[in-house]
Amino acid sequence: MQTQSATIDGVRLLARVEEMARIGATPAGGVTRLTLTDEDRRARDLFDAWCGAAGLTVRIDDMGTQYARYEGGDPALPPVLVGSHLDSVPLGGRYDGPLGVLTALEVVTALRERGIRPRRAIEVVNFTNEEGVRFEPAMVASAVLAGKYTPAFVHSLRDRAGRTYGEELDRIGYRGAVENRPGAVHAYLELHIEQGPVLEAAGLPIAAVEGIVGIRWCEIVLRGQPQHAGPSPMGTRRDAMVAAARIVVAARDLARSYPDPVVATVGRLTPSPGVINQIPAEVVLSLDVRHWTAEGLAEISDRAQEMARKIAAEEGVEIAIATVQDIPPTHFDRRIVDLFAAEAHARGVPHRRMVASAGHDAAYMNLICPTAMLFVRTVGGRSHCETEAIAGEDAIVAAEILCGAVLRLAEEV
Amino acid sequence: MQTQSATIDGVRLLARVEEMARIGATPAGGVTRLTLTDEDRRARDLFDAWCGAAGLTVRIDDMGTQYARYEGGDPALPPVLVGSHLDSVPLGGRYDGPLGVLTALEVVTALRERGIRPRRAIEVVNFTNEEGVRFEPAMVASAVLAGKYTPAFVHSLRDRAGRTYGEELDRIGYRGAVENRPGAVHAYLELHIEQGPVLEAAGLPIAAVEGIVGIRWCEIVLRGQPQHAGPSPMGTRRDAMVAAARIVVAARDLARSYPDPVVATVGRLTPSPGVINQIPAEVVLSLDVRHWTAEGLAEISDRAQEMARKIAAEEGVEIAIATVQDIPPTHFDRRIVDLFAAEAHARGVPHRRMVASAGHDAAYMNLICPTAMLFVRTVGGRSHCETEAIAGEDAIVAAEILCGAVLRLAEEV
Repeated sequence: MQTQSATIDGVRLLARVEEMARIGATPAGGVTRLTLTDEDRRARDLFDAWCGAAGLTVRIDDMGTQYARYEGGDPALPPVLVGSHLDSVPLGGRYDGPLGVLTALEVVTALRERGIRPRRAIEVVNFTNEEGVRFEPAMVASAVLAGKYTPAFVHSLRDRAGRTYGEELDRIGYRGAVENRPGAVHAYLELHIEQGPVLEAAGLPIAAVEGIVGIRWCEIVLRGQPQHAGPSPMGTRRDAMVAAARIVVAARDLARSYPDPVVATVGRLTPSPGVINQIPAEVVLSLDVRHWTAEGLAEISDRAQEMARKIAAEEGVEIAIATVQDIPPTHFDRRIVDLFAAEAHARGVPHRRMVASAGHDAAYMNLICPTAMLFVRTVGGRSHCETEAIAGEDAIVAAEILCGAVLRLAEEV
Repeated sequence: MQTQSATIDGVRLLARVEEMARIGATPAGGVTRLTLTDEDRRARDLFDAWCGAAGLTVRIDDMGTQYARYEGGDPALPPVLVGSHLDSVPLGGRYDGPLGVLTALEVVTALRERGIRPRRAIEVVNFTNEEGVRFEPAMVASAVLAGKYTPAFVHSLRDRAGRTYGEELDRIGYRGAVENRPGAVHAYLELHIEQGPVLEAAGLPIAAVEGIVGIRWCEIVLRGQPQHAGPSPMGTRRDAMVAAARIVVAARDLARSYPDPVVATVGRLTPSPGVINQIPAEVVLSLDVRHWTAEGLAEISDRAQEMARKIAAEEGVEIAIATVQDIPPTHFDRRIVDLFAAEAHARGVPHRRMVASAGHDAAYMNLICPTAMLFVRTVGGRSHCETEAIAGEDAIVAAEILCGAVLRLAEEV
């Protein structure tokens, strides 16, 4: 094995993260760059331009995912993929996604500048629609690679304005060819901000991520008796809002009865018609539950649904529950997790191993190739908000570790 | 005192109610006819046409309220006003409002056809924006008559699209003159559906309404920590949605601890950004509380706000509470309430007296002239929904009673 090494350019990396954050920038310092919007197109164009300047060849697949290839010594060998996503949630942060894509680009740029050409090609990846906010479900582009969804299903997803994923790919000029998907992949690595408070609380800049909690998303529809708020004695009501509220509280209490990192969250709750002086006819709410084992996820999810049905029955409200996304827990490749830990150790960087609590494209990639993630400490644990922040030093340390791991894997026979 | 009487034309009355219900009709049999929309304009035009055909003179005041005058024997005497409103809530019913306006028109039409011209003029009234859904607060047109709001305040109210009440009055051609407001008023009578289950449960077609509960509307803004739904351990959360849900449940439980007709309702609850995988940064919810005494209203309202502040503190969430409408309880004119009861008794119609639980323009009119209301049994107590219904016989019986009472009052010296 060669003993090559490269030092990444931390200043350039951080400057690019800031430049990318200008696209879709919000007044409070965050980013709104929903997938396949004009902002996403501009982010893709900028990434494409940087890749071109770095001498990389960019392909786009049928899901709109970009792959920027740094050719290896043996082009026939399956490449190492490194990346993340450039789309954001509404009023999201500047690091969730872009930090991983731009660190991967920095790694490859640093290798090239130092004349290091590993045995295997390295491809920097920008996955389409990681967030799944505009087009649900999330992470559909990697899911298609893993055979979990058909391209036709994904292309026909509609946003709330009725526009489809496929139409929007065409509109922004990013519908590529199925032939541009990666074939066999040697490994997939993804650097990402932690998005939680664990590393900050532990005083650690990075973590080697061993896996991802399983995530189940439900949509709960409650139908009660729409009625004027005044002349409806309390004892006669079938109030969908009260039922929904009790479900929100019950889900929280249920999750609290489990150890971390088990969580349950209601982020969306929509009463219809939603006016001040009427008991709503219908309330639709989302429920997001997460657990690190398949059995645990099934258990908490079943218990939450059972409680919701019991509450609905008590309130005299009809209930329908649909599972809209169901991602089993992910167990990453042990060898790559160890490699991240070893690279951190070799640099004297304190670290830990942990289970991620948010979905990432790495979960689907793990189904088709050895995969692992590297987490960067997040200020205050805040993410999916405009005040999302990291320390620049943490990003640079993480980039060095990623670079070391990528180089090792790309040199493998 | 004369012993005149008139028999109203029940078939015509019910046919007009149905014809009016076609304007803004919804597929499920209801009506969406928000104030000052094109649908409201068409409803006003139709009412105006019917009034013209009945030989009435229609005025429009500066709030857009229509007054159709049937001149009395002595035009100098203050008139008797009878009416209600033609606007609706979104996906509302066909009787809430229009039944009162069109019954009043039927009463006057019947008197005129039978050659009965009472001493005092009778004016059929269609108040603008009774519902207060498009432009909050509700019942602003009668409130201006009562000196509770200035015309400038009302004209500058904005809907969610940013259009003002004044602009929309102009747009639909219904901004009239301040001179067209009624001067001194001898009495105001309003027939309305009960919108609740009390009469149906008692097996009674009508009730003489003695007063209206006081109503207080609050807007509660909760600001928590926006955070990704995954990597936020349950113990670290400051979740505005959970706080909102606990307030919904607490308000319900509080109202339940009081006797009927005390109620508390949350009809609107809006999380921001409201996406499936994020703890909301902010949740805004409405709270509607009602009690039949001023002391009771203050007490339940204070207790609800105190509980909301306590919950917010427990959840680590900031709270701001604004009172957006505060209507004291109304006690109607005892003499007119007795008159309704006497007219019912004289016709052998079983009836009761009751306190109304919803706001009506009659509450403001009661501040400037002797006022009372007559309630009509509502099928299943359902209102503010598309399935709102009444029995035609009940409407006809109520119209006869209203006609008798109007005639008595209009003959008074």
